[in-house]
Amino acid sequence: MVYVVEMDVHIPETWSEEKLADYVAREKACSQKWQSSGKWKYLWRVAGKYSNISVLEVESPDELHQIISSLPLFPYMTIKVTSICKHPNALRETLL
Amino acid sequence: MVYVVEMDVHIPETWSEEKLADYVAREKACSQKWQSSGKWKYLWRVAGKYSNISVLEVESPDELHQIISSLPLFPYMTIKVTSICKHPNALRETLL
Amino acid sequence: MVYVVEMDVHIPETWSEEKLADYVAREKACSQKWQSSGKWKYLWRVAGKYSNISVLEVESPDELHQIISSLPLFPYMTIKVTSICKHPNALRETLL
Amino acid sequence: MVYVVEMDVHIPETWSEEKLADYVAREKACSQKWQSSGKWKYLWRVAGKYSNISVLEVESPDELHQIISSLPLFPYMTIKVTSICKHPNALRETLL
Amino acid sequence: MVYVVEMDVHIPETWSEEKLADYVAREKACSQKWQSSGKWKYLWRVAGKYSNISVLEVESPDELHQIISSLPLFPYMTIKVTSICKHPNALRETLL
Amino acid sequence: MVYVVEMDVHIPETWSEEKLADYVAREKACSQKWQSSGKWKYLWRVAGKYSNISVLEVESPDELHQIISSLPLFPYMTIKVTSICKHPNALRETLL
Amino acid sequence: MVYVVEMDVHIPETWSEEKLADYVAREKACSQKWQSSGKWKYLWRVAGKYSNISVLEVESPDELHQIISSLPLFPYMTIKVTSICKHPNALRETLL
Amino acid sequence: MVYVVEMDVHIPETWSEEKLADYVAREKACSQKWQSSGKWKYLWRVAGKYSNISVLEVESPDELHQIISSLPLFPYMTIKVTSICKHPNALRETLL
Amino acid sequence: MVYVVEMDVHIPETWSEEKLADYVAREKACSQKWQSSGKWKYLWRVAGKYSNISVLEVESPDELHQIISSLPLFPYMTIKVTSICKHPNALRETLL
Amino acid sequence: MVYVVEMDVHIPETWSEEKLADYVAREKACSQKWQSSGKWKYLWRVAGKYSNISVLEVESPDELHQIISSLPLFPYMTIKVTSICKHPNALRETLL
Repeated sequence: MVYVVEMDVHIPETWSEEKLADYVAREKACSQKWQSSGKWKYLWRVAGKYSNISVLEVESPDELHQIISSLPLFPYMTIKVTSICKHPNALRETLL
Repeated sequence: MVYVVEMDVHIPETWSEEKLADYVAREKACSQKWQSSGKWKYLWRVAGKYSNISVLEVESPDELHQIISSLPLFPYMTIKVTSICKHPNALRETLL
Repeated sequence: MVYVVEMDVHIPETWSEEKLADYVAREKACSQKWQSSGKWKYLWRVAGKYSNISVLEVESPDELHQIISSLPLFPYMTIKVTSICKHPNALRETLL
Repeated sequence: MVYVVEMDVHIPETWSEEKLADYVAREKACSQKWQSSGKWKYLWRVAGKYSNISVLEVESPDELHQIISSLPLFPYMTIKVTSICKHPNALRETLL
Repeated sequence: MVYVVEMDVHIPETWSEEKLADYVAREKACSQKWQSSGKWKYLWRVAGKYSNISVLEVESPDELHQIISSLPLFPYMTIKVTSICKHPNALRETLL
Repeated sequence: MVYVVEMDVHIPETWSEEKLADYVAREKACSQKWQSSGKWKYLWRVAGKYSNISVLEVESPDELHQIISSLPLFPYMTIKVTSICKHPNALRETLL
Repeated sequence: MVYVVEMDVHIPETWSEEKLADYVAREKACSQKWQSSGKWKYLWRVAGKYSNISVLEVESPDELHQIISSLPLFPYMTIKVTSICKHPNALRETLL
Repeated sequence: MVYVVEMDVHIPETWSEEKLADYVAREKACSQKWQSSGKWKYLWRVAGKYSNISVLEVESPDELHQIISSLPLFPYMTIKVTSICKHPNALRETLL
Repeated sequence: MVYVVEMDVHIPETWSEEKLADYVAREKACSQKWQSSGKWKYLWRVAGKYSNISVLEVESPDELHQIISSLPLFPYMTIKVTSICKHPNALRETLL
Repeated sequence: MVYVVEMDVHIPETWSEEKLADYVAREKACSQKWQSSGKWKYLWRVAGKYSNISVLEVESPDELHQIISSLPLFPYMTIKVTSICKHPNALRETLL
């Protein structure tokens, strides 16, 4: 099953530059681990914003949550989750 | 360049079933023409809603508008357009 | 997989009482068919509003969409879909 | 009487990891106490978000408030409360 | 149990003046029947708007829904329902 | 003249428990002083939320502001103020 | 007492030009009657929108409602009502 | 003085194709008259939406309103008006 | 030209009472300087809220910004700016 | 390709005046570098708000993101990005 997930990052104002850099580095490692696994299909930057739109193909809603909530910045993001399925007008046989 | 577009359809309440069926048929033909052209990459149904999330790869913002505004239901949709680009954490070299 | 779905009904102002009664009757039959199937687990009325909160257990997002979009009033509802999973603090082993 | 309650948690950015861990542990104990009592019927995680949807069956609005406000993270949550009742189309005789 | 209910009326633009007058008259009769019953405690006009704020004391959420949904204009109102209980700072022993 | 006021409290995350307890105690004393004066007619807790709905009968908008702004937590609340008047369908002769 | 009232007009799409012209003419006469009475102090057009911001000085909330609800377009406006009072930093002794 | 104006068009569902074509033609003529006058500096289409963003340089707020309200589709648009001025970081001496 | 400006103040939670008192005193001096200049025509308190509605008559949008941004609490306010002009139904010849 | 970008700045409350002044100075230098490059075409202040509306002409969405995200205050702004194209009613041959 496939989800489209939009994440808006809100950087805490009280964090030092070191703390922020540490989080950003761990965020990158974490998201790349999931991309390598084949489950995080697309990771796009929203042009001009501290946001991304992602497409994930997972076994279950629990696996989606496991992936998203493992991100170090998870508590500091506003997240919109959309469950998608086949559109009757789609020519493509599969979602991805 | 790639756009993520979310379209929410609002069926006019005064339309007859025939008029609606006609619009739905022309909508399908139009969206499939653009899918066949290779520009409308993904057309996903939002599960449980009269909405879709689409991914389009176009030459320019003008071409994006040409495609979306050619849809018969274009005047009856609420549309959200997001311009996307490469994410620094993305492993994939290209957007699609 | 389990979804919580909230549906707000907007009755078209131009419909006759007969047309409305016909839709309401078909809406009832349709929702009861899905309840009988065991997939539409809970159908609750929001007290004081023309809305419901429902819990559905389905095989896939496609099945969720098949059920919701089969409702006659589907084009006239504002729908919020939430995909849920196991909470780490939940004592219950399964979702339902 | 039955309520559907949606809670979105906003983790304070200034909290240390120890303070947060302490709150999370006490939150778990508190919510499980109420689940064990039989009043907190369902506790679901919203997939991909730091939110839950819960179903509580209580004696009165006062009891609902007693339960929700006893959660350690209560002051740091955005909460939506929905009072539900029997839907005329529901096949099930009781709400739960 | 006590609810505070806010109702915003949206008069359909296609209704004739006769149809509107008929609805308004039946709305008045209906709301006064429930006021006379002692369950609809307060009915206040929001100054300057086609809205009211009401306070109802009912046996159950089902009874609240029975009352509100019996109003002829029910399908044409946006309704906000708030379940209230005793405030720890309140001097008054009962809600009403 | 009568106002319905809804106050949502946002507890500052950086406050110590002592500071919070001090504010809460002073908030209680202040609201009870105004209740005793007969001007703050109703103080209701919104079930499940850190919010209240209040009904105040005052001499003027200035007096309303004097009362609400004297609350110690006034700067940390989101406040909605509604001026109400007699509803044409109300059976009761006076507002309260 | 003084209110600031913002009114956004939504012209019904099904009205003929004659019906609209009739409403607009009656709206003008009605608002000018209240301006002449000295109660409707200011009537400002929001530049570029079908909206106005008005300042009314009335005896009571009931009188405010009497004035606003007498406007022929009252059912087709979204209205925001703000009750104002003396600001502690204001040099002017009175509101108007 | 310069304004940025965003206009979202909502095509009435009950209009015939002829009526709509007539409005669209008159809309074009009207907007081009103002562009020719030199006051309507930029008229941009929002890619993928039935919306425009415009920049107008006018003598006064009254002139802005005269221009915008002369558009035939004015009553059927949601309009956002922003008054702009020189930014302290701007290198350009004038706004346009 | 005349603007209606609504300012909602958000007092920073981390400020000491001394810092806040200092800001409030400087805010008062600043707003009174502009009132004395004759440009800040009205400064009204929104009853029951930490907000004001103001009416300013200025030479240009730049002057409006100079005044508003000189307020010490400017960075901690949510501000809504409305440019107004003569209403066709207004009896008064001038705006103020 | 051309984007209209609206940026609302939220100054962190915990920053010292020195830290803020440092950020503001670097923000100015950064935005002027991009204006000098010819890519940041317009930088307008929204009158009365800590916001700007900007027009940028860039090679790609990636370049837009490179510019906007290089601003020191980027993490502390709410940003709205709009991709624009030629309007069918525009007399001007090019966007800028």
